[in-house]
Amino acid sequence: LIFEVKILGCNSASFAFGRHHTSQVVNSNQNLFLVDCGEGTQLRMIKQQIRFNRIHHIFISHLHGDHYLGLMGLIFTFHLQGRTDDLYIYGPPGLDEIISLQLRHSESVLHYRIHFQVIEHDDQLLFENEDLQIISLAMNHRIACYGFVFREKQRRFKLKRELLPETLGREELLLLKEGQNVTDSAGRVWRNEELASPPPVPRTYIYAADTRVLDGIREVAEGCNLLYHEATFTSEMQSRAEATFHSTAAEAAQFAARHHVERLILGHFSSRYQDVSPVLAEAIQYFPHTILAAEGQTYEVPARVASKQHASII
Amino acid sequence: LIFEVKILGCNSASFAFGRHHTSQVVNSNQNLFLVDCGEGTQLRMIKQQIRFNRIHHIFISHLHGDHYLGLMGLIFTFHLQGRTDDLYIYGPPGLDEIISLQLRHSESVLHYRIHFQVIEHDDQLLFENEDLQIISLAMNHRIACYGFVFREKQRRFKLKRELLPETLGREELLLLKEGQNVTDSAGRVWRNEELASPPPVPRTYIYAADTRVLDGIREVAEGCNLLYHEATFTSEMQSRAEATFHSTAAEAAQFAARHHVERLILGHFSSRYQDVSPVLAEAIQYFPHTILAAEGQTYEVPARVASKQHASII
Repeated sequence: LIFEVKILGCNSASFAFGRHHTSQVVNSNQNLFLVDCGEGTQLRMIKQQIRFNRIHHIFISHLHGDHYLGLMGLIFTFHLQGRTDDLYIYGPPGLDEIISLQLRHSESVLHYRIHFQVIEHDDQLLFENEDLQIISLAMNHRIACYGFVFREKQRRFKLKRELLPETLGREELLLLKEGQNVTDSAGRVWRNEELASPPPVPRTYIYAADTRVLDGIREVAEGCNLLYHEATFTSEMQSRAEATFHSTAAEAAQFAARHHVERLILGHFSSRYQDVSPVLAEAIQYFPHTILAAEGQTYEVPARVASKQHASII
Repeated sequence: LIFEVKILGCNSASFAFGRHHTSQVVNSNQNLFLVDCGEGTQLRMIKQQIRFNRIHHIFISHLHGDHYLGLMGLIFTFHLQGRTDDLYIYGPPGLDEIISLQLRHSESVLHYRIHFQVIEHDDQLLFENEDLQIISLAMNHRIACYGFVFREKQRRFKLKRELLPETLGREELLLLKEGQNVTDSAGRVWRNEELASPPPVPRTYIYAADTRVLDGIREVAEGCNLLYHEATFTSEMQSRAEATFHSTAAEAAQFAARHHVERLILGHFSSRYQDVSPVLAEAIQYFPHTILAAEGQTYEVPARVASKQHASII
């Protein structure tokens, strides 16, 4: 199953050195979720050949301009392109008012419907389909800000259809799908692994921006497979990070290590860094499995090594 | 005196073929005026090396997204760059509310002051300094929309200081500056051209977008030196132009010819035209002094040929 994130923009508040305002696209089994939408996101989408009509869900973390100012333009472009599909927008209180006000003044009657869901608290289930859940994660920023947990659902065991004996009934097949051994009508016991393959281990991707590094985190984030965490500054700017409610590379990496994250992507770089390699150099001292976000790159949410996780699945 | 316009974006509602949303910078004697501010304008400014701290006045024609959605980002960027200079924004009713609402939700207290002037009617004097006046010009669009008349002021005659006889008093010098002949204290008559040079003919630049072609226009626009007029479509799309309150190239060119414009720039091209040369081909049938706006290009506001205008100056 596809589960990956493509970075459209990974700079902080200003455009600098070819880096753009925050936006990314999470692809879960060919369903795309746009996460944050800084100014110019629609241009980044065109450049990355992301078809606009594939976007049905947009998640906005908070109302600082570099995270949402591309949203109105995208809404108008959808309209101009003749979109009729519903659009679901998830954001903090106020975003709906900002959108409605601008629609009213443009006297636009959209050809499609916008459903707006206010993110009101931590651990709010925002979206769910057969593949995953998307849940809010409260950040610690200057204004209300939410990260997002993309959590794959546990799938069932997959039957080895060509090996199934006719002596098994419907009930036994369901038990096999749940990972259990079964006894057929002839009284023979079948071990699960003879007739079924275990499902992939569900993976979790967490988007965490903008925030002071969190003191703790809910269980859901513990050991997540991929964490995108802001690292606006290096430790030289520790006091600035604290004053502006951002994190340093060291803090993000220590957080990842403390919570047994599989892999860490750092982003939201300050415009003071033309060369962002010091951000990486600082982070890997604390957490070696760190990479720097690069615009246009796609990062797969990695599976855990099976041996490490096997005990927890079955 | 410098009097020119630099095109930052000249496409209509969508980004297409490397063309961007509407924005341009008028330079009058080193004072810069930003006219419209589509999404991504700050990136275009960086590309064209327009220093942000030189922008003190921003004029927004109307509240369709492709003309103003870059404004909030620019306001935030000014703030992040530590701007302290006042910023003057001129726009239709509603724009101030859109700005205030977004400042409120971002909980930003800007380091500088914004003065907002509502454009309420045609022929409203919006700005004036020693070089020029900027006046609203009502367009005919789907929603309230204003063009802008940039009108140089009549300057005085320039004295040929090295030739001035001491027999002339202060009063005579003032008369010379007004273009009159004078008599000195010895009773000698001096013709004006012996002691003074005529000032340059004041020029007028008009920005007209978005609009159905106007039936008539106020006197101020008659014979203007440079007219930027939208030409969203060619005549093949006549009915679409009418339905959407836009103009065709033929209509814009006929308008320019009818009102004795010196030079015409066409812009606001529909994204249906990858190659915009048909827009030009159509226009020059009616008005040969037409050029197509090109992003990054600067167009001087041309002076009239002296012989044509001399009668009207003196």
